[in-house]
Amino acid sequence: MEFADYLPIWGKLTPQQQERIAQAIDYRQVTKGTFIHDSSADCLGLIMVRSGQLRTYILSDEGREITIERLIDHDVCLLSASCVMPDMQFNIMIEAEKDSALWSIPACLFKELMGQSLAAANFANSLMAGHFSHLMWLMEQIMWKSIDKRLAAFLVEECALEETTCLKITHERIANHLGTAREVVTRMLRYFQSDGLVKLTRGTIQVVDLPALERLQRQEKGPAA
Amino acid sequence: MEFADYLPIWGKLTPQQQERIAQAIDYRQVTKGTFIHDSSADCLGLIMVRSGQLRTYILSDEGREITIERLIDHDVCLLSASCVMPDMQFNIMIEAEKDSALWSIPACLFKELMGQSLAAANFANSLMAGHFSHLMWLMEQIMWKSIDKRLAAFLVEECALEETTCLKITHERIANHLGTAREVVTRMLRYFQSDGLVKLTRGTIQVVDLPALERLQRQEKGPAA
Repeated sequence: MEFADYLPIWGKLTPQQQERIAQAIDYRQVTKGTFIHDSSADCLGLIMVRSGQLRTYILSDEGREITIERLIDHDVCLLSASCVMPDMQFNIMIEAEKDSALWSIPACLFKELMGQSLAAANFANSLMAGHFSHLMWLMEQIMWKSIDKRLAAFLVEECALEETTCLKITHERIANHLGTAREVVTRMLRYFQSDGLVKLTRGTIQVVDLPALERLQRQEKGPAA
Repeated sequence: MEFADYLPIWGKLTPQQQERIAQAIDYRQVTKGTFIHDSSADCLGLIMVRSGQLRTYILSDEGREITIERLIDHDVCLLSASCVMPDMQFNIMIEAEKDSALWSIPACLFKELMGQSLAAANFANSLMAGHFSHLMWLMEQIMWKSIDKRLAAFLVEECALEETTCLKITHERIANHLGTAREVVTRMLRYFQSDGLVKLTRGTIQVVDLPALERLQRQEKGPAA
């Protein structure tokens, strides 16, 4: 039962509760690009990422996107179980950004556990607090940070996630992460290139000066130029 | 013990837990403009609003503001007890927008209750889910709605809260709610005036055509003009 290592409260559950989970848990492997969850259509349950990388995002009526969170191994996500939380009203999507493996505990079972187990209820609390903090951070970025700093932060994060400074990602895709237009990303990347921060070739962005991008993302106001 | 009516889980607590709350609860009346909470400095606890109106907001390093939530009577706020939640890292401010009366349950006591009582833990869950949903709604507004629609929505909300169409509020104050610049608000209000939606006089905004503002706030894309 490898999944037990991915569920921090496992040891605090009763043998009966553990047994219920072991019977109901779903394991699946998905390829990059797989659409995993749409909270307007279903309620998947609690997701635990074993490997790979997932992205939670929202979509406007006009098809614009913005990334909310990126989940890697050992991350647990409650946003895919929004039906568990009575006051949760929003529509979040989840897709696999890389080939991924994940477990999910059905929403109805997790809800039942929250009603029986203090550990489960408080685990949900800490997950929600984490989701909330992250969303607050994101909103501060959107409100107070200019797009050059947000793009710098995205490139730094992407280098860490991909473990390379040669990023294979389209400008369109970056725009969808940041909730902006492709043209804005292209313009800013060209400006980064002229400043010696990146080198652009067809289909790739080579990060040339990672420390400079790290400095840029931390700056508080005004563009670097 | 009037506060019991304001704490939905009161009936689900043990007599001992009720007694602890009754002894520790703090009641205070504050005048409009009073600064109630700064989560970088303290951790007030769970707030229950008896009357009046509070505003939770965040502040950038440069002094810009944006309103997160507005709390009225019977609202309960967990953001003022962020120390209770291990993964909550952000700095939220709370001020009284009107003369207000509120109770607060000390953070340490509420944390203790969350560790003992399933009702308390799941109440915290539902509060967090509510705060999260609201923040998600706000982010969608900021991302996908243009400022004219957000201003229309703010004026509609303000008329409801104040129970009047004659609003005594400065353009600066509205800008702080919406996280924009005063000039942007002034320009948009003049445009609303030329369109017959409001009438501007010194220190007041008279809403002339509330139904039109309500229609405007619901529109999905593009300015009304």
